[in-house]
Amino acid sequence: MHTTFQTVGLIGKRDDTNVAETVTALIRYLDSSGIRVLLDESVSPLADGSQMADGSPIECVTTETIGEQCDLAIVVGGDGTLLSAARTLADYQIPLAGVNLGRLGFLVDISPDHLSNKMDEILRGHYLEERRFLLQGDVYREGERIAGGLAFNDVVVHKWNLARMIELETYINDRFVNTQRSDGLIISTPTGSSAYALSGGGPLLYPTLNAIVLVPVCPHTLSNRPIVVDGDSHIEVVVADSNEERTQVTWDGQDSFSLRSGDRIKIYKRERELRLIHPANHDYFETLRAKLHWG
Amino acid sequence: MHTTFQTVGLIGKRDDTNVAETVTALIRYLDSSGIRVLLDESVSPLADGSQMADGSPIECVTTETIGEQCDLAIVVGGDGTLLSAARTLADYQIPLAGVNLGRLGFLVDISPDHLSNKMDEILRGHYLEERRFLLQGDVYREGERIAGGLAFNDVVVHKWNLARMIELETYINDRFVNTQRSDGLIISTPTGSSAYALSGGGPLLYPTLNAIVLVPVCPHTLSNRPIVVDGDSHIEVVVADSNEERTQVTWDGQDSFSLRSGDRIKIYKRERELRLIHPANHDYFETLRAKLHWG
Amino acid sequence: MHTTFQTVGLIGKRDDTNVAETVTALIRYLDSSGIRVLLDESVSPLADGSQMADGSPIECVTTETIGEQCDLAIVVGGDGTLLSAARTLADYQIPLAGVNLGRLGFLVDISPDHLSNKMDEILRGHYLEERRFLLQGDVYREGERIAGGLAFNDVVVHKWNLARMIELETYINDRFVNTQRSDGLIISTPTGSSAYALSGGGPLLYPTLNAIVLVPVCPHTLSNRPIVVDGDSHIEVVVADSNEERTQVTWDGQDSFSLRSGDRIKIYKRERELRLIHPANHDYFETLRAKLHWG
Amino acid sequence: MHTTFQTVGLIGKRDDTNVAETVTALIRYLDSSGIRVLLDESVSPLADGSQMADGSPIECVTTETIGEQCDLAIVVGGDGTLLSAARTLADYQIPLAGVNLGRLGFLVDISPDHLSNKMDEILRGHYLEERRFLLQGDVYREGERIAGGLAFNDVVVHKWNLARMIELETYINDRFVNTQRSDGLIISTPTGSSAYALSGGGPLLYPTLNAIVLVPVCPHTLSNRPIVVDGDSHIEVVVADSNEERTQVTWDGQDSFSLRSGDRIKIYKRERELRLIHPANHDYFETLRAKLHWG
Repeated sequence: MHTTFQTVGLIGKRDDTNVAETVTALIRYLDSSGIRVLLDESVSPLADGSQMADGSPIECVTTETIGEQCDLAIVVGGDGTLLSAARTLADYQIPLAGVNLGRLGFLVDISPDHLSNKMDEILRGHYLEERRFLLQGDVYREGERIAGGLAFNDVVVHKWNLARMIELETYINDRFVNTQRSDGLIISTPTGSSAYALSGGGPLLYPTLNAIVLVPVCPHTLSNRPIVVDGDSHIEVVVADSNEERTQVTWDGQDSFSLRSGDRIKIYKRERELRLIHPANHDYFETLRAKLHWG
Repeated sequence: MHTTFQTVGLIGKRDDTNVAETVTALIRYLDSSGIRVLLDESVSPLADGSQMADGSPIECVTTETIGEQCDLAIVVGGDGTLLSAARTLADYQIPLAGVNLGRLGFLVDISPDHLSNKMDEILRGHYLEERRFLLQGDVYREGERIAGGLAFNDVVVHKWNLARMIELETYINDRFVNTQRSDGLIISTPTGSSAYALSGGGPLLYPTLNAIVLVPVCPHTLSNRPIVVDGDSHIEVVVADSNEERTQVTWDGQDSFSLRSGDRIKIYKRERELRLIHPANHDYFETLRAKLHWG
Repeated sequence: MHTTFQTVGLIGKRDDTNVAETVTALIRYLDSSGIRVLLDESVSPLADGSQMADGSPIECVTTETIGEQCDLAIVVGGDGTLLSAARTLADYQIPLAGVNLGRLGFLVDISPDHLSNKMDEILRGHYLEERRFLLQGDVYREGERIAGGLAFNDVVVHKWNLARMIELETYINDRFVNTQRSDGLIISTPTGSSAYALSGGGPLLYPTLNAIVLVPVCPHTLSNRPIVVDGDSHIEVVVADSNEERTQVTWDGQDSFSLRSGDRIKIYKRERELRLIHPANHDYFETLRAKLHWG
Repeated sequence: MHTTFQTVGLIGKRDDTNVAETVTALIRYLDSSGIRVLLDESVSPLADGSQMADGSPIECVTTETIGEQCDLAIVVGGDGTLLSAARTLADYQIPLAGVNLGRLGFLVDISPDHLSNKMDEILRGHYLEERRFLLQGDVYREGERIAGGLAFNDVVVHKWNLARMIELETYINDRFVNTQRSDGLIISTPTGSSAYALSGGGPLLYPTLNAIVLVPVCPHTLSNRPIVVDGDSHIEVVVADSNEERTQVTWDGQDSFSLRSGDRIKIYKRERELRLIHPANHDYFETLRAKLHWG
């Protein structure tokens, strides 16, 4: 088979028995299609006692090596697994495709049923590629950058270890927006708009829209509503009042950092976009209808 | 005074005594600044018994003539007055500036206090110009365009003369989105996002964002949430079930047309954008804070 | 069979072919159980060419006669069918049971599957009886009562034939609550809280709670939130500004009356409550989970 | 002056200079009215170097002693100060009155302006007394009660030290309601319905309504809406999935306790209600209008 992709990396949800079966099937399928397979450390235990058709051992590598050497990364798991892989691979050109574990995700939209047929199509170049942007969220304390992280879904500044509301000041392109008391503020990409931001009362943003949405979480002022701004905006959130380090910033709900009063979180679109691979018949609205029980 | 604008049209809220005073002051001020003034038919009664400094009568014209002959239109009234003028003047190059009646609007943001100072600044070219887009909303019945209108805020398809919900099908760029039962669907520009769409639960869109938001009104399915799509999207709403002509389309809440089952409303961005003039110190977020009682 | 009920009235959704089958099955079943059956005018066409086991014709009567002569009314259809029957039968002691057409309703919760088994249980007295209250909504113009109606779900004062918001003043037990601009105001019973009021953003009220909820529809002021008050409260809504008769009051979304500026709608709990019969294993939360796709 | 109250306790927000002035004025006023004053430990520093008119020292006592010996407690501060005092005094018969610091609260509704006139009225028995209930929230681990607390506003089970949602199961009167993934669940009294529950999207409950509202915070399932149940309901929340003690229960946002998977929080109305004293012209809706910027 002539394939668009020659070297494929396989990444999976750690310690999940359902992942094992699908990844093993993928290894066999890709191997038989003459494609070189690199197995990510997340699923490297699956390489034990197994080998390629030609008797060679399965190559296990770091996610970074997948980024360097592969021309496609297949992620097996839930949306969270792909989020995590996306952040690690953000510096590489490699596109990502997501295989779910039987339950459709917004990002992992390839069903494990009839997987070889579906992979055949993708490997032959019959797929849909979408550009999705990520957010960089950097923390400044007294003028110095002390922490930073990438988010594919959202950067969230939120209260932590505290029942009471926190106070945040927001600036967009250096213009003061407001001071709000709330449980937190979600700064979300279009990708993240169907995740936590939606639970917080935010709108859905079409995935390729160049926009960022700011969603206050349980704001004290009821008219503090979600605001959608241009994707190229520079957003700054200042922790106005949080004694005793009871505010946190979180990237994609996976990494976090503890904040102090006066800390400034600067959030902006990362220049390099992520390439997300969908099956050719992918339809965002179909996913929405299925996930949100529309009709 | 050297001025950026030589001929200015004055448009006002009809039959409003507060408007009279401000318009009369504007006539005197513009006349004394050597600017030619055309008075719109909306406020033409104010020309009676009055005249310019040189004894000539005040020229009263149609709004279209203002569009043709003036290089600035000043609208005195509320946001609704400017909405109406914007639709009529959409085919002309003329920029619009809005003077409110003492109560700040999102569109009419020049206060009547110290009006001549503020007008001086604007006439000298010291102002902020913003491009805002309008939506065209056309109604098709059995393949034929039978009605159409422009909206600066929103095109709304809604139940009318009926207590029960209506059923609408929505398509974006020919892709089926959903069938919803609701009181209606608001298709709003960023300009309209702080108006009716906000009351319906929609997000605020930054005014110059190239995006359209679709806000379902009281949807039966609770997960039918507002969706923000690219401003260049083609939106189509089909009246799925409405016997007895109990559905209506409304442009900016001002013009309306009665719909039947099977009618298709096609909504898309109008190519020519509106030029909106703000005082130089205009700050959208300041307006939001004032209008929404933030902090 | 010894039965709790000797005479049963059958009411159905008009002109619905699915109803016919279930009603016909119920007639046969009740007849064979030795129960006298009265057929409501809504489904009287089903009596044509049919007869009871003893050769006598099927008795067709008005809904009022069912209220007078039956000790149980079985309603076949959707929640709307039961709503309508409930209002008509509100003056009688008769309990109501609802059989749905294959799709669970909040009120019609007896499935048509294995119907005779389920009816056996109910006829033998093995059922759950719930008391639900109705609202009386009377319209006063210049001090005089000019219209009135009953609602099992809600009394709604709403704009009609108009795109713009209306202005309403609300009083609870003669205390002024607020003046609001909105699309309307829903005054709902606990029964109605899972219907239109829910779409409008209201909370769910447990069905037997003695409370009324007021839900503003698309209020201009974002902090105009639903308010839950004691079920014995007297609520008064005044049409503050509605020239040209563009406001309406609607009872259960089924009957309506056109309002003028100054009209007062007085809403209060009807003394006599409705008796609603459920299968013995009825569980409100189970219905909620099914209808709202929880989990 | 003949007064309804002979011994008055004074409680204040700790370490607040604005409180000092009002409390000192109250001491002088009460002393001159022949009323015995007990100063709570929260404001006992104010007794230093000060004395009553007869030269005796100001009596400083614990809040419990105020509960035992006084027939009125005056709380000076914000709503939070009164919440805290209410929980401590819940076991005593003593009524509470709240004096704010210039900014109206829902609970502290006596303005510090013209304070002696207002206190005169109250001391003469010209006031409005309202009964408000509190919630008891007890934590059970493996069948044993391991913690418990009182709440005047709300008992909140919420995520803590964690970005991801938690999973909670809710039961009402031993009936399963749902399993929800969310940031938390607010179980609120009518008193609390205008506080955190409102920010979370809950309805307002009239203060004396016998009802409890359950408000999910940022629920993953969008149809997980607030539910209002009878005030005498027994509510049980089970922590379904929270490894590493990342869930917490909080009483009135002031006390908290860390939870584990399997912990059950049982919440029910405390039998003894709180007596809240308002000025005679108190009007709940007036407070709502002022606090929520209605109109």
